[in-house]
Amino acid sequence: MNPPSRRLEQQIDFIVAVDRLKQVFRQTRLIDDRRPENDAEHSWHLALMAVVLKEYASDEVDMARVLAMHLIHDLVEIDAGDTFAYDDAGQADREERERAAAERIFGLLPADQRASMIELWEEFEARQTPEARYAAALDRLHPVLLNYHTDGAAWRRHDIRRHRVVAVNRHMEDGAPELWEYARALIDSAVAEGKLKS
Amino acid sequence: MNPPSRRLEQQIDFIVAVDRLKQVFRQTRLIDDRRPENDAEHSWHLALMAVVLKEYASDEVDMARVLAMHLIHDLVEIDAGDTFAYDDAGQADREERERAAAERIFGLLPADQRASMIELWEEFEARQTPEARYAAALDRLHPVLLNYHTDGAAWRRHDIRRHRVVAVNRHMEDGAPELWEYARALIDSAVAEGKLKS
Repeated sequence: MNPPSRRLEQQIDFIVAVDRLKQVFRQTRLIDDRRPENDAEHSWHLALMAVVLKEYASDEVDMARVLAMHLIHDLVEIDAGDTFAYDDAGQADREERERAAAERIFGLLPADQRASMIELWEEFEARQTPEARYAAALDRLHPVLLNYHTDGAAWRRHDIRRHRVVAVNRHMEDGAPELWEYARALIDSAVAEGKLKS
Repeated sequence: MNPPSRRLEQQIDFIVAVDRLKQVFRQTRLIDDRRPENDAEHSWHLALMAVVLKEYASDEVDMARVLAMHLIHDLVEIDAGDTFAYDDAGQADREERERAAAERIFGLLPADQRASMIELWEEFEARQTPEARYAAALDRLHPVLLNYHTDGAAWRRHDIRRHRVVAVNRHMEDGAPELWEYARALIDSAVAEGKLKS
């Protein structure tokens, strides 16, 4: 039996290292048992949403690219931690922290894959391509859905009000306008039902 | 604002319902903190492996289809529970339990998506297409990797021996022969290091 190639060893090292994403916790909670959701679960859920809701993407999208973006979009949080969307102080230095994390984590891969993964992550963050706009829209819809279905747990915990939820999430409109329309109605319902302050 | 269409309501109901996958636990454990892994985390990890290890697929594969398979392949376990790969009694009636689960869970979707999701799940289970063979190979490699990196936790707990690990996992060879070669070497190392009985 041949020893594994250096290339395969690097790829496996990366796969083993990213197991840690299952221990990076978010502010959102699971619908049933209300424990905090972790980034691996969130990434899975997002990617499945991308498959199911594809017809609402603003433009024709390369689904393999959208899904790969979802699968990798939070890996930087293994080092940089999750930054709550409504944490203005955390958002201020988020880019710097995440950039360093991307260099380390994607740097575990062979050079060609390191480069293509960083490019994919940057594309997601920049929201300039149809794939990135659609992928990012779902990344906003997902916590709105989970917050709504957990009586506004994360919103209430951090005293978030309606206008901030609208401001943070409205770029959803660029990637999937009908889903933004759905989310706005859900936000209105959340206010009417006392899950979110007006 | 228009009310959401019946179609979108069904799609969202499905997305909300499958949140439960985050509460279906497997025998494998996380590498660091050793708690049992859940199916949502496993599905995410598999799909990411599919992206990183694509060059080892036996045939050219449609990556969007491989990833969609990974994202949905364990949804039936929301109702049917996880069946440990080495549980012969559980495997005996697994198909029947999972078939009923597929009807209920995919049945939440609009009819066209229900049909295409069931077809995709059946394709994965049958391992007859290049996509299904590659996707299934990774579904075998993943627990071998996690078991190896957790001192053989699930193997030791259930007193699994080397020949059974080889027997259960060798179809990996059909979808990704170099990865099977890697896995065999890892299984041999596990035996040499006392993580798996010979």
